[in-house]
Amino acid sequence: MSQYPRIKRKKTREIWLGPVGIGGANPIRVQSMTNTDTRDVKSTLNQIERLRSAGCEIVRVAVPDERAVSALKDIVRESPLPIVADLHFDTSLGVKAVEAGVSGIRINPGTFKNKKRLDELVMVCKERQVCIRIGINAGSLESEILKRYKTPTPKAMVESALKWINYIVEKFDYYNLKVSLKSSNWWHTVKAYEEFSRISDFPLHIGVTEAGGLITGTVKNTMAVSYLLLKGIGDTVRISLTADPVEEVYVAYEILKNLGLRSLYPDIIACPTCGRCEIDLMGLYKKVEEWARGIRANLKLAVMGCVVNGPGEAREADLGIAGGKGVGLIFKEGKIVKKVREEELLSAFFEEVERFLKEHPERMNQ
Amino acid sequence: MSQYPRIKRKKTREIWLGPVGIGGANPIRVQSMTNTDTRDVKSTLNQIERLRSAGCEIVRVAVPDERAVSALKDIVRESPLPIVADLHFDTSLGVKAVEAGVSGIRINPGTFKNKKRLDELVMVCKERQVCIRIGINAGSLESEILKRYKTPTPKAMVESALKWINYIVEKFDYYNLKVSLKSSNWWHTVKAYEEFSRISDFPLHIGVTEAGGLITGTVKNTMAVSYLLLKGIGDTVRISLTADPVEEVYVAYEILKNLGLRSLYPDIIACPTCGRCEIDLMGLYKKVEEWARGIRANLKLAVMGCVVNGPGEAREADLGIAGGKGVGLIFKEGKIVKKVREEELLSAFFEEVERFLKEHPERMNQ
Repeated sequence: MSQYPRIKRKKTREIWLGPVGIGGANPIRVQSMTNTDTRDVKSTLNQIERLRSAGCEIVRVAVPDERAVSALKDIVRESPLPIVADLHFDTSLGVKAVEAGVSGIRINPGTFKNKKRLDELVMVCKERQVCIRIGINAGSLESEILKRYKTPTPKAMVESALKWINYIVEKFDYYNLKVSLKSSNWWHTVKAYEEFSRISDFPLHIGVTEAGGLITGTVKNTMAVSYLLLKGIGDTVRISLTADPVEEVYVAYEILKNLGLRSLYPDIIACPTCGRCEIDLMGLYKKVEEWARGIRANLKLAVMGCVVNGPGEAREADLGIAGGKGVGLIFKEGKIVKKVREEELLSAFFEEVERFLKEHPERMNQ
Repeated sequence: MSQYPRIKRKKTREIWLGPVGIGGANPIRVQSMTNTDTRDVKSTLNQIERLRSAGCEIVRVAVPDERAVSALKDIVRESPLPIVADLHFDTSLGVKAVEAGVSGIRINPGTFKNKKRLDELVMVCKERQVCIRIGINAGSLESEILKRYKTPTPKAMVESALKWINYIVEKFDYYNLKVSLKSSNWWHTVKAYEEFSRISDFPLHIGVTEAGGLITGTVKNTMAVSYLLLKGIGDTVRISLTADPVEEVYVAYEILKNLGLRSLYPDIIACPTCGRCEIDLMGLYKKVEEWARGIRANLKLAVMGCVVNGPGEAREADLGIAGGKGVGLIFKEGKIVKKVREEELLSAFFEEVERFLKEHPERMNQ
């Protein structure tokens, strides 16, 4: 039986965010957002580099004021990833952001003040083929629609998105557009995307907004994102966390990997440790995980706490370690290949993994 | 529109684990497992107390040898939670564990050596109405079945579980039984539970085994557990993590809360911070989260980074804070109720929450 669910991906229109294709037959893209002060070019670029090295493909930066726009030019020039400018209230900043060379802008129709200015912005985006995300947020739904629906229901969010998508398509004949429909409630988020996806083939940027911290936010986002991706909905993923944005990238790939949609890092099986465990398994696990974040390969590794059950229980792993008192085992494809002293376990294991990867270059990702 | 999905829970047989009802109309139970050395009674009891205080309702301890059995007696006597003994290989230890007073045992048919000893064990369990979990694990499936299926497929796992359930029911007329069918692959786990649930009405203990560390394990478990619970499958949850077991309890409740199945802690909405944010939102969030883990109430709190969007975007929160430069806002049910200096923001906020809870005692859980 397949390790992964069979997913029939909804066919969406292919769009471009700079060099990155989204929707259509493109892989599901992983993106994040910087949380540095955009005006601080150096810190922002450092964070972008950390995001890129973790596998992030698109990065968004907030553009709250003129000084952020000025910094944007330098950020765009130096960034290894295409930049999306996040705008609120003042669409005239958007025009300047486009002139600074961003590949995409995100606008929230709920915070627009002036429709004429929006037209101007769409026109410069079209001129430069800059991608526009219509980013609906339940917490800031446009007042006209909110008044009619009373609360920001999924249907209300979808209506707002369709209204602006149609406006841009009809008035400007411009199609380099994507949509997000986020609520801090995962179920409303899911329902809004499902509804929109039934009606429109514009690509979708998915995720839960204001989801919370590393753990609670990972739970909410995983619930929504895995639910949607299983139904074939979603073309680019952003996991919002009140945490280091690099973690957003790891969580996104973990979900995609478990759905069989994209593999970047090794998968790590690890037992939760119990009263049978005689080594510091948690310490061992953390070191393996940290190290594995530097490896881009389609690999299954195992970190097991007991030498009796370990190798058997982790039979499906390509390589694994099982710790015992003073001694550890290294196993490969279900067979024990080495017995080493506990202090040498990690270095011997990493060596074995590297040898395995040399023998199996087809396992390397990218 | 409802905040939560409509879930039609599969009707399972009600069983008892000491004073704790599982299945039937009982709430979905949250359980965990100690990772201390069971022979160390004091450390084990300390961990059990931490688990209880986090909302854990059932705790499992490994019983690898005779010395662990001896310690078990003291653990059972002092534990505020019913204890499940985890057994492998040696079922005679199980008899002694039952005599030590545990409320449940977990046996893994894949590791049995001696069927006659199993009969003995079931008999003492029946005498004392001790709950038995048939805990199937893909990594240690019984060899006879594995030989036929070649790999530990979901169907093979279900066959093993049904075989032992039927054996105990038919030979001993004993029904205080539950089942788990775990793989380290979340999709196989889900498929095994779905299949079993179609055939049998014994209650199910759900979770992914060897799921990995705090983040990767949370992702895998959330995918499987939320998928199953949405389909009405699952009566007790254990989130296996290679981490502090207390985190397993928080993750379990976070999933249950987002499905509208159980509420224990406040829900926290928090923005992910961006270049618009002028305060240390992550620090603020962590303090609110830590504090909220001590509150058992059905509450929605918000921690927002900007005073402009914050109160609006977190409109649905009961209470929230929005930080600005040097100053913070406290809002209640969408309205700003206080403006305080940044240093006083947290204490003023906690005061407001406590006042709110005094005014709304119906919001308190338990």
